Amino acid sequence: MSGDRAGLREAGCVQQPNPNEVIMPEKVVIIGSGPAAWTAAIYAARANLKPLVFAGRPKQTPSTILPGGQLMLTTEIENFPGFPEGITGPQLMARMEQQAVRFGTRIQTDNGQTPDVSNPDDGHSYSYHDCSKVDLSARPFKVWGEDGTEIETHSLILATGATANWLGLPNEQRLARSGGGVSACAVCDGALPVFRNKELAVVGGGDSAVEEATYLTKFASKVFMIHRRDQLRASKIMQKRVFDNPKIEVLWNKVPVDVLGDKLISGVQLKDTKTGEVSDLPVGGLFLAIGHTPATAFLEGQLELDEKGYVKLKDAYRTTTSVDGVFAAGDVVDSVYRQAVSAAGMGCKAAIDAEHWLAEQGIE
Amino acid sequence: MSGDRAGLREAGCVQQPNPNEVIMPEKVVIIGSGPAAWTAAIYAARANLKPLVFAGRPKQTPSTILPGGQLMLTTEIENFPGFPEGITGPQLMARMEQQAVRFGTRIQTDNGQTPDVSNPDDGHSYSYHDCSKVDLSARPFKVWGEDGTEIETHSLILATGATANWLGLPNEQRLARSGGGVSACAVCDGALPVFRNKELAVVGGGDSAVEEATYLTKFASKVFMIHRRDQLRASKIMQKRVFDNPKIEVLWNKVPVDVLGDKLISGVQLKDTKTGEVSDLPVGGLFLAIGHTPATAFLEGQLELDEKGYVKLKDAYRTTTSVDGVFAAGDVVDSVYRQAVSAAGMGCKAAIDAEHWLAEQGIE
Repeated sequence: MSGDRAGLREAGCVQQPNPNEVIMPEKVVIIGSGPAAWTAAIYAARANLKPLVFAGRPKQTPSTILPGGQLMLTTEIENFPGFPEGITGPQLMARMEQQAVRFGTRIQTDNGQTPDVSNPDDGHSYSYHDCSKVDLSARPFKVWGEDGTEIETHSLILATGATANWLGLPNEQRLARSGGGVSACAVCDGALPVFRNKELAVVGGGDSAVEEATYLTKFASKVFMIHRRDQLRASKIMQKRVFDNPKIEVLWNKVPVDVLGDKLISGVQLKDTKTGEVSDLPVGGLFLAIGHTPATAFLEGQLELDEKGYVKLKDAYRTTTSVDGVFAAGDVVDSVYRQAVSAAGMGCKAAIDAEHWLAEQGIE
Repeated sequence: MSGDRAGLREAGCVQQPNPNEVIMPEKVVIIGSGPAAWTAAIYAARANLKPLVFAGRPKQTPSTILPGGQLMLTTEIENFPGFPEGITGPQLMARMEQQAVRFGTRIQTDNGQTPDVSNPDDGHSYSYHDCSKVDLSARPFKVWGEDGTEIETHSLILATGATANWLGLPNEQRLARSGGGVSACAVCDGALPVFRNKELAVVGGGDSAVEEATYLTKFASKVFMIHRRDQLRASKIMQKRVFDNPKIEVLWNKVPVDVLGDKLISGVQLKDTKTGEVSDLPVGGLFLAIGHTPATAFLEGQLELDEKGYVKLKDAYRTTTSVDGVFAAGDVVDSVYRQAVSAAGMGCKAAIDAEHWLAEQGIE
């Protein structure tokens, strides 16, 4: 084993700590690996900031986040500009990661080496590290990897994203991941041919659920809103949109208990919250609109979050946060748009903001 | 000629006005054809809004705007996420346009037909229309094409961009367009291999010029700032960054009179503004940082612009403007970032904002 390490060391593959070496803080650490994170990395790398990325680690259970963010859970993406023929989520993320690494982005991994990312299928992401803790109370900031490694950094870009809330139904993830007609984003997926002129269902009762249901009536023959209570949580004006729309029917006091279908969804099994009665609703698509959870638990007490846990921006046009030198981009700040390209746009802004801030501080 | 038209009409290729037909207002008109405009069109088309685009018309003189926006003036783009091997500006814009048309975007043209855009080299953009005038004082809004066509629309997305200011030197555009080492964007182009370890020059004396010069010192062996006065216009703190940076030398009281070089820039010819003396400065790159001009002349008096002519956003996080139902995205509002991906991100937001607004108004 030690022989192997020596061999690797000779080949330059293991960085041995030098006791006399002063470890300089990083210029910029990026936490995340969705469109915002990789775009920030592309821009930071091209600005010679040699960004270090904590990309997260796949947990090998279906409900946790893969490196690559929410797009890893999608199949075909038709609305990322530049890909008229469409591209899959994992392909797009692999391309962004390759681009970031091409310009000198480093990824925190088990062996300390940024892997060759040219082949996305070789499982390299299983050696990526989560960031488990940060200390933003003093500069340089400190971030800790999941293995306890402590890293100092002058600036930090938070791009950890948010995850759609799922119901946890037995067949929900299976049909969501395979393009089987279960989705947590109507704007992303509603226009796909598989949903045209079908009867669809939306789960939820808030403003977002109404927006998604209204949006889906453009494509669907009918949209059922499945709501566990006997009135909607949405604002009055949004409720009016539901009741005025002849294509929307609300199913009150119902909760889904499973999704039906083999390769493609054929229906939803519902339970009545008052009578307990179970029934099947045949639909060609199921859209969850029961909120998102930003990945900010590890940031609590470190910088300002809003009441839902999203990172608060200091200036809504930029990516500055309540802590100078800490920037945020993508779904971790965005409860409104949540699109791959809007997240990528913010990632670009975060890197430019960080570069300007470092130059102002005289950190070159 | 009329026989041709009759034939075309039978083939469904010419829309004849029907005197009994009530022409309904458009749901959304988009003005522009850069990354913000086409991304807005992709999202609006996928939301079934059938957007109509005024894409602008190439004027066939080197200094005016081509449909496609500022990226048409670049060669290789390395920082648009998703293209690890790079892509040219015109290729990227052609791909975005194809994608918008694929989902039902219409382009205002000489013959009223959206052309087949699958081949970007067939000159179809020469039939595109500029928008010459708008009336935002009443709803539906009115927009006029350059041929006088009046179109009514419920909502409007402004994505007309901004153009970098150029000096108008005899050989400036020739070397800018061919990748010959003249650029108006250091963040876009500074990291290209052609500029590595070269002596470079920046023209300008404001904050942006200092930012661009500082940025270029990451790659260049030396950066000359060429300024026509004997002191910088930049703020004191920015001036300090210049004077503290050993790689930057300011050449006072100098204006460029021409760019030297055949395929690649070899230097700049300078004139001293006090003595009139002409001298050659050998450099491997010239970056202009003398400001941008947003394309908003046709909007004056119609909605709020800032003192530099940029469209003012009502809410900096969104794309709303001072007129309800009018949205703006990309460089026409952005004097800070001006990147293709940040513009595309805003275009996506504008389409989502327009879609929500139309739904609120009950316009489906």
